[in-house]
Amino acid sequence: MNFVDELKNLKEQIKFKEKFNLDFDYDNIVISGMGGSGIVGDIIQEHYTKKPLIAIGDYGIPDFVNENTLFIGISYSGNTEETLNNIIMARERNAHILAITSGGKLSDLADYKIIIPSGLQPRSAIGYMLMPLLNTFAPVQDSVIDETYNLLESMDKSHDEMRKIALKIYENSYIPVILGAKPYKSVAYRWKTQFNENSKTFAFYNYFPELNHNDTMPLKKAYRKDEYLYFVFNSDNPRIQKRIDVTQEITGESFNVVSSPTEEYFQKLFYLIHYADYVTYELALIRNVDPTDVSTIEELKRKLA
Amino acid sequence: MNFVDELKNLKEQIKFKEKFNLDFDYDNIVISGMGGSGIVGDIIQEHYTKKPLIAIGDYGIPDFVNENTLFIGISYSGNTEETLNNIIMARERNAHILAITSGGKLSDLADYKIIIPSGLQPRSAIGYMLMPLLNTFAPVQDSVIDETYNLLESMDKSHDEMRKIALKIYENSYIPVILGAKPYKSVAYRWKTQFNENSKTFAFYNYFPELNHNDTMPLKKAYRKDEYLYFVFNSDNPRIQKRIDVTQEITGESFNVVSSPTEEYFQKLFYLIHYADYVTYELALIRNVDPTDVSTIEELKRKLA
Repeated sequence: MNFVDELKNLKEQIKFKEKFNLDFDYDNIVISGMGGSGIVGDIIQEHYTKKPLIAIGDYGIPDFVNENTLFIGISYSGNTEETLNNIIMARERNAHILAITSGGKLSDLADYKIIIPSGLQPRSAIGYMLMPLLNTFAPVQDSVIDETYNLLESMDKSHDEMRKIALKIYENSYIPVILGAKPYKSVAYRWKTQFNENSKTFAFYNYFPELNHNDTMPLKKAYRKDEYLYFVFNSDNPRIQKRIDVTQEITGESFNVVSSPTEEYFQKLFYLIHYADYVTYELALIRNVDPTDVSTIEELKRKLA
Repeated sequence: MNFVDELKNLKEQIKFKEKFNLDFDYDNIVISGMGGSGIVGDIIQEHYTKKPLIAIGDYGIPDFVNENTLFIGISYSGNTEETLNNIIMARERNAHILAITSGGKLSDLADYKIIIPSGLQPRSAIGYMLMPLLNTFAPVQDSVIDETYNLLESMDKSHDEMRKIALKIYENSYIPVILGAKPYKSVAYRWKTQFNENSKTFAFYNYFPELNHNDTMPLKKAYRKDEYLYFVFNSDNPRIQKRIDVTQEITGESFNVVSSPTEEYFQKLFYLIHYADYVTYELALIRNVDPTDVSTIEELKRKLA
């Protein structure tokens, strides 16, 4: 599959129906994953809060992990060093071990596992990795999935808007800064990482309201102000929308607003994710870099092994 | 107190002995705070993991919050909109409400409160806000506090090293990027916010090992590479230190290493915090901006009220 086919595959992934069938009680949930796999832990952490849920992108597990913990390892390859390290630790604490992976060592270490299709870039398998978590903890109605499918399909057919943004970034050598807000802070982080891996550009992120307590000062008074291009997502939270408006007013900055056609959680989530897929893919083409190339990351893994 | 006196006050703050005396059981802990107050929740979240502990810098509280939750509001002024919003929600769920504040509305809403000295910039009161949490959940030995006092005092007397770094940043209009690692990821974020508020410059942060899954690509291939100055903290975790070394080797970047004279948790924590205090203060002086000026943030709060 070439890279654009991987992007077009996303709309099929949201139909993935696998879920964990858990016939026991548990007190808390820990999700361990890195990079393009770890992001799904960040997404679910913002959305599902009925039990304490902690997403970790690191070596090491919290002290509280015990036999009442649901410990979920997510690694597309199944061989991510940090995630395997943590799964082994969690097993020693007798936690319930769940895994989402396309194979690798992770699948051998889990009590419950969901095997997803292999052959994609890990970051292109975000739907396959996220859906089992949503299906288990916060199921999505079929009608919503159908509408989301149509939304993603229309983006696959025409993404001139995203190409224009990519051109604007390229022509000015802008550094993108994405300013998210709950429950899409993790999506702002996804944008950053897609710029990094697909376009090979720097990108940064922050979120409302926290950024009003720090970044607001340099937005008014920093050097290199003109080198950054800001993105915000439209918000149906009036306090957040007001902060977006007032921040622009008092700093003189003008943010690029990415407006989802709907405020429904799941549709907006995948709209915003897919929007960045195409901006970062187009920017790679314009820069003449290979969006699938992650050779530096692979080289690093070899040297660490 | 002028700003440099506020910085020198930090070594006194670590002697602050107040703690919460909790004679009841609880299942989990939620800490709500923003900006210069919220950072102490991030710090304790990395250090204390015996119970699920979630630090939030946002509007809204998790669904799981109930009568078995310790809900801690931290706001130096006691009038932070987001924190008050959350405390009121947590009260409705019958959570145990704890507050750390110098006054304001927050102190009226708490079941248990610790009142800290007023008159400082919130970001200069980090010791007063953090110590009650450490004293309650992870007490520090007096001998360690004494050694930390001496360490901070020696930094107060001589910070030529930090001034040289500030000069280097200024002369090249560098954007600082701080690359932390557990348990000092929150300290990397503290550095970012101190650059923002004290120096009025942009600054960004990320952490090992997560950054090896994304930022590693642009570190090798991005445009504007020469405009960023990277800081890392020395690490006694061999896997992290190896990642720091290999990342520099394969990307050709050279990071500025900030080396704590000790690996003891508490001493290193405050050494790294105070190091940034002086780098960002000196950079403000060199840039001829007032390190205490947060007028844009204040203007924003007025317009939101």
